Amino acid sequence: MRILEIREKTIPLGGHLRNAVVSFNDHTVSLVALLSDQIRGGKPVIGFAFNSIGRFGQAGIINERLSERVINADELLDQEGHLSPSLVATAAMKNEKPGGHGDRSGAVAAIELATWDLKAKLRDEPAYATIASAFQRSLSAASTSVYAAGGYYYPGDSIELLKTELREYLDQGYTAFKIKIGGASLDHDMHRIESALEIAGNSRALAVDANGRFDLKQALNYAKVIRHLNLRWFEEPGDPLDFQLNRLLIDEYQAPIATGENLFSRIDSLNLMRFGGMRPDIDVFQMDPGLSYGLTEYAGILTDLETAGFNRRQCRPHGGHLINLHIAVGLELGGCEAYPGVFQPFGGYSDACRVQEGWVTAPSAPGFGLETKSELTHHLKELRGD
Amino acid sequence: MRILEIREKTIPLGGHLRNAVVSFNDHTVSLVALLSDQIRGGKPVIGFAFNSIGRFGQAGIINERLSERVINADELLDQEGHLSPSLVATAAMKNEKPGGHGDRSGAVAAIELATWDLKAKLRDEPAYATIASAFQRSLSAASTSVYAAGGYYYPGDSIELLKTELREYLDQGYTAFKIKIGGASLDHDMHRIESALEIAGNSRALAVDANGRFDLKQALNYAKVIRHLNLRWFEEPGDPLDFQLNRLLIDEYQAPIATGENLFSRIDSLNLMRFGGMRPDIDVFQMDPGLSYGLTEYAGILTDLETAGFNRRQCRPHGGHLINLHIAVGLELGGCEAYPGVFQPFGGYSDACRVQEGWVTAPSAPGFGLETKSELTHHLKELRGD
Repeated sequence: MRILEIREKTIPLGGHLRNAVVSFNDHTVSLVALLSDQIRGGKPVIGFAFNSIGRFGQAGIINERLSERVINADELLDQEGHLSPSLVATAAMKNEKPGGHGDRSGAVAAIELATWDLKAKLRDEPAYATIASAFQRSLSAASTSVYAAGGYYYPGDSIELLKTELREYLDQGYTAFKIKIGGASLDHDMHRIESALEIAGNSRALAVDANGRFDLKQALNYAKVIRHLNLRWFEEPGDPLDFQLNRLLIDEYQAPIATGENLFSRIDSLNLMRFGGMRPDIDVFQMDPGLSYGLTEYAGILTDLETAGFNRRQCRPHGGHLINLHIAVGLELGGCEAYPGVFQPFGGYSDACRVQEGWVTAPSAPGFGLETKSELTHHLKELRGD
Repeated sequence: MRILEIREKTIPLGGHLRNAVVSFNDHTVSLVALLSDQIRGGKPVIGFAFNSIGRFGQAGIINERLSERVINADELLDQEGHLSPSLVATAAMKNEKPGGHGDRSGAVAAIELATWDLKAKLRDEPAYATIASAFQRSLSAASTSVYAAGGYYYPGDSIELLKTELREYLDQGYTAFKIKIGGASLDHDMHRIESALEIAGNSRALAVDANGRFDLKQALNYAKVIRHLNLRWFEEPGDPLDFQLNRLLIDEYQAPIATGENLFSRIDSLNLMRFGGMRPDIDVFQMDPGLSYGLTEYAGILTDLETAGFNRRQCRPHGGHLINLHIAVGLELGGCEAYPGVFQPFGGYSDACRVQEGWVTAPSAPGFGLETKSELTHHLKELRGD
């Protein structure tokens, strides 16, 4: 079998949100289609994926560098003659130098993940089953733990809006929540946290996220004030690559820390494990396959984590969408996140996915089931050329 | 003053070369033009720069994200009303998240560096003078130490070709050299090194470069065999982000190590200083402003280096071209590199630049003097719209 063509469409993210560092108004995502020479039901089988959420579309890198390499590659099949996501990623990276894991990591990921969608469709099964089979996991369930990531600083930010938002999540079946901090004064943020706790019910149900905003002193200031709450976790206190800050903060903070969503390669993640002070069974790793060269690289990260004494249940990838839902289920991770109602058309799960008591079940449609998400329908149609 | 328009042209690199990891045949570079509203001699003043050499052009990121932000930015002038490269870089990075320092770093760098070219032209002086003035350096000379980086694995690689190549560099005025290793067997590489030493004359005149190819075991194997030679330096033995490998290798190898050309930000460089085992006055830092957000970020790296007890003379940026020549002179670094005859139209210095006994003098033309390099003439003309 061959990949005949790779199509990319850059799509803006919906929602007028900001975290402590950026506004998402001009963020975009690359939706990618891999057209194969395989025919099912009279139509060519197409793999779809996208480079997660929260950074930018990668039309430039995909169209100028990666696509041609993959289309022209001689060796994309494994020993059984099936399409190999690992070989697809290797082909995409031909003549790329080591280091510099940023935009390129997302561009490669979109193509590598579309290969998983294609593989699963050829096997006529949901992607989590294909993933579990490829990585020798014996699946116990098609569902995983999920939490509602919200609490952004909306324009006209108010505490009442925040509480209403969390109450809606509760009504939707979520039992754990995450809100932003660091975009206002410490006093105001404490007010936000206390108000959110009223809805969340207990501190283990509420995480806070600084989106890498703080320097060490600011992070320690927040840590001192919120430590006694023993929150679910304190996310990305400082620059994601400042492993020393992370370690020093953990020494002081003691309660769980979460980080990793802005590390885009196996070696960056390994540096976090080596130098960042992360603790087995306490802290949370949020590396996102869709921003980090895809699932092959992510599986390598899991190997490194387990070798270093961590547990894959400590992994809750950044990016609340169908692709990461399948990955969390298939690889038996700790869970995934959801951004209810925002970051459309990519954010959240498909219409058929019910959240119940903090668990979400992956759709049983073939592949990642992006076709089951109504917000994506016309984009997929356009890429298919229907 | 305002920046009216940013133009980008992606240009392929000349030469059929490969190192231990990649072939350069499909590498490209972004040449960028900043059109200002300032008129000199009846023509608009234009700043030119490019994102160094050896990775890829960044048309996608420049055109889809950065240019519009810079053009629309309100605050690009410093307190004296002059264009501020630092504010230009900040504007280009609006709504970009932390982490992920790869392709984006080069895209921003091209624009930030073009701002220096523009500033220097407005002051009617060579860029090194503008740079020295901006960073309070009292310039002692317009020249800097240079070495010839070559010894690639040409198709039909032969020891005689390698010796001929180094002899030519010697004839051109170079007194120090660098050759590639890791692309052949250890035995063959040792043969290459010994042959190169015949021409270089002494081991302090010859560096070797593995381009990040080795794992720790391979790096230690090479180290064991070449250690007694006490070469000029052993460059990029392992993955550029594997700081632990670098430290363990230094423990064993003892002789000078060089690395950093594939670290593209201040925080990645700081991690090398913190965790990589680099030694004051012995090892060499090769971070390249043109791949790392430009000169503003690079000056931050120098601050971190000096704070950590290193000397700026330990810095010899990757990228043998006019921009880095001006930077090495203006910031009084240890020197720069040259790739005689290859990586055209960007590689090497301008026709007027003579190399004498291992020193090269920056051209006195305004800005980086890209206009003095004949290979670039028609590209600059095209971007100017002449």
